[in-house]
Amino acid sequence: MNDNDLKNIIDDINFLAEEKNDSMIVNILFDEHPSDIAIIIKGLSKSSGKHVFSLLDADTASDVIMEFDESVREKLIADLRHERISEIVDEMPSDDATDFVAELPDDVAEKVLESIDEEDSSEVKELLRHEEDTAGGIMAKEFVSVFSGVSVDEAIREIRAKADEVEEIYNVYATDSEGHLAGSIPLKELLLAKSNQKVQNIMVTDIASVPVDLDQEEVANIFRRYDQVSMPVVDKDGKVVGRITIDDIVDVMHEEAGEDMQKMAGIADEEEIHETSVFKISFGRLPWLLVGFIGQLAAAFILKQFEASLKEIFIATFFIPLMMAMGGNSGIQSATIVVRGLALGELSPGKTLQRLGREILVSLFNGTVCGVLLFAVVAFFNDPAFGFILAFSMVLVILNATVIGASVPLVLRKAGIDPAIATGPLITTFNDIIGLSIYLGLITFTFKYLHV
Amino acid sequence: MNDNDLKNIIDDINFLAEEKNDSMIVNILFDEHPSDIAIIIKGLSKSSGKHVFSLLDADTASDVIMEFDESVREKLIADLRHERISEIVDEMPSDDATDFVAELPDDVAEKVLESIDEEDSSEVKELLRHEEDTAGGIMAKEFVSVFSGVSVDEAIREIRAKADEVEEIYNVYATDSEGHLAGSIPLKELLLAKSNQKVQNIMVTDIASVPVDLDQEEVANIFRRYDQVSMPVVDKDGKVVGRITIDDIVDVMHEEAGEDMQKMAGIADEEEIHETSVFKISFGRLPWLLVGFIGQLAAAFILKQFEASLKEIFIATFFIPLMMAMGGNSGIQSATIVVRGLALGELSPGKTLQRLGREILVSLFNGTVCGVLLFAVVAFFNDPAFGFILAFSMVLVILNATVIGASVPLVLRKAGIDPAIATGPLITTFNDIIGLSIYLGLITFTFKYLHV
Repeated sequence: MNDNDLKNIIDDINFLAEEKNDSMIVNILFDEHPSDIAIIIKGLSKSSGKHVFSLLDADTASDVIMEFDESVREKLIADLRHERISEIVDEMPSDDATDFVAELPDDVAEKVLESIDEEDSSEVKELLRHEEDTAGGIMAKEFVSVFSGVSVDEAIREIRAKADEVEEIYNVYATDSEGHLAGSIPLKELLLAKSNQKVQNIMVTDIASVPVDLDQEEVANIFRRYDQVSMPVVDKDGKVVGRITIDDIVDVMHEEAGEDMQKMAGIADEEEIHETSVFKISFGRLPWLLVGFIGQLAAAFILKQFEASLKEIFIATFFIPLMMAMGGNSGIQSATIVVRGLALGELSPGKTLQRLGREILVSLFNGTVCGVLLFAVVAFFNDPAFGFILAFSMVLVILNATVIGASVPLVLRKAGIDPAIATGPLITTFNDIIGLSIYLGLITFTFKYLHV
Repeated sequence: MNDNDLKNIIDDINFLAEEKNDSMIVNILFDEHPSDIAIIIKGLSKSSGKHVFSLLDADTASDVIMEFDESVREKLIADLRHERISEIVDEMPSDDATDFVAELPDDVAEKVLESIDEEDSSEVKELLRHEEDTAGGIMAKEFVSVFSGVSVDEAIREIRAKADEVEEIYNVYATDSEGHLAGSIPLKELLLAKSNQKVQNIMVTDIASVPVDLDQEEVANIFRRYDQVSMPVVDKDGKVVGRITIDDIVDVMHEEAGEDMQKMAGIADEEEIHETSVFKISFGRLPWLLVGFIGQLAAAFILKQFEASLKEIFIATFFIPLMMAMGGNSGIQSATIVVRGLALGELSPGKTLQRLGREILVSLFNGTVCGVLLFAVVAFFNDPAFGFILAFSMVLVILNATVIGASVPLVLRKAGIDPAIATGPLITTFNDIIGLSIYLGLITFTFKYLHV
């Protein structure tokens, strides 16, 4: 549905909610996709939104509620009775149910886990044991698997038995007699096979699977590498314990891309666009602002050390912003390329030295271009000798910033820290201080000892 | 396959390539996934890589070659005869074939289009007419569609007829008697339905489709919103003209995330991690470096205007980097949040003023925290009055940077320019100049007129 249609529906429902015409609202929403219903509810006033949500049947509500950001969800369920929450959780696939229960206050979560279907409850409890950002943390317990010795007909019967429970089926997993993953049969092949054919004769045996404790970013890379729409998750014995579907991977990629962007910008916590608490937003941004603050106090201290020579050659002051900014910008460029390569698994460990060498050449080239331009400008308006010193300093500052920019993410990675933070205020501040020292040191040295 | 296994195979094949033991190489690679073969070839020496690629049958080669970056692919096919290229293209699905042919030199592309299968050739020619980054540019012509009046049995017969041509089938599209998209049947439903049931009685009618000229980033957002694994592409009459599958969307998301990161860092062209030409890399980075260069020359000019007051109050010089960096960092933070919200379709047009208001509150809070800290430091080491002026300036600089950071992406979006460039050197440079003017103006004013 397009945004205009949605806007019209929102207006209609706002009106109907005031008129208390619930049956009409239910009628309008009956046909809509849960994602659209979520957008509609977000567009309503707070009280109307809560009211409309309460009109949804548990099945629809279970899909709609997972479309919201956590902060919106929290408000929406704040005054729901736990019986209603249980009803909603009962309709969720196990991965959604787990994420949802994990967000609930402890006492509510406990009550909910007691009152939902026993099998669902034990699945959720099992899934809660896995780290949130691993294969186990995003997988669902719903999948179809058969012994590889059965016939196509029996496999289809198993699909029929699980059809209600497993909403989307793309493949049936086949196991050996000990329950280890042995292969996978795409539905297309099942549909085209003869009903008495054995599953083991039509299954694909060279299939990708992921271990239950693999990091979700790695899982996403494997999905992308092998163009999969769903993948079995196996425990350390090779037994299938869950299934990850591509829609969850799309969410992971979306989340990781957003997180990377935010880390690059120096935002500590995942900041949601719909977050309304000014303090929560501020506290997420303050840590890196303060890192920059302390770093630039150090810069002030360095400037103070060079006070005498700056007073003598006052014109050098004018170019401080230029030197710092050029270092900052070129440092961020190379850091970003390396961070991207690492995050997307494109930069293999063996190629890092080669990459560093290439960055040095690029920085020498770009540094020289900028240096020559700077020389030309300063020589024209002022003094060729001073222009030359500035140009030389520019090359050094850009070279230094690039080497730092390309190395810091590699070092962070080795240390087990997310390299994405390297592209934020960390590198800019670091480069500012070193660039400033190079520039001021060079100026002082040439004027003091070379008497330029 | 894990990285260690791949490394072992690469070593083995390097050895076998020297020994010219081609049959053994073919044996080893026979079972491997095209993505793994691509990684193996990338790990070999240049000449061995070319040799091993030449050993692959056309079908495997057609999958393997699309796994490489464009720059690698270019080198690999540079000295292939066009007959071999045509053989490979003949095995590709139409979307891959189109991307591949579009990259070929014009004369080779023409020869290839003449010698491949006529139907494939006309499909590629049709797809080439669409913009690269629209639904039409990423869709394939391979899909299964039936008239909604046919039986399940007939639909399955249609799948069988197209099974070779359409590699992955998740849904069959149903059309009305005039060929307009009417619904979609998941394979699971086909598998469970009775063979004489009519397709129109089991099809899902409320399905998402995308217009052929929709931007690929929007297409990705729709896939994500509706949790789809494939989606029909329709022309303006509502007829199905192609199909987009989730693996292409995953690639789009991957590409867009990388592009956004690079734009944020001020890299103009898509820079590939495997790009080896130093000049190509340098030229992609220079434009934004030069924007920064010119901006900071302006900063030097501004500093020169304030020369008299800076000489009088020399200590003010020390805090220039601090003021500029705090403005830069807080500006990038708010720009990033807005850019992210726009890119991911999370920030609806109606909410932008509200967002701006929240950013102003956040900046006042963070500015005050940093201002108070700065006052404390300066008051302790130097002079409370000067500390107060610095603190006040800090609040203004951060407020200004935040407002600019949050507004520029919105303005760029209105002007039809990708807002992602806002978070790069553009905003930093802009904020540097305005922040510097605010700071120096305030210092000069207070000392000149207030005689602090």
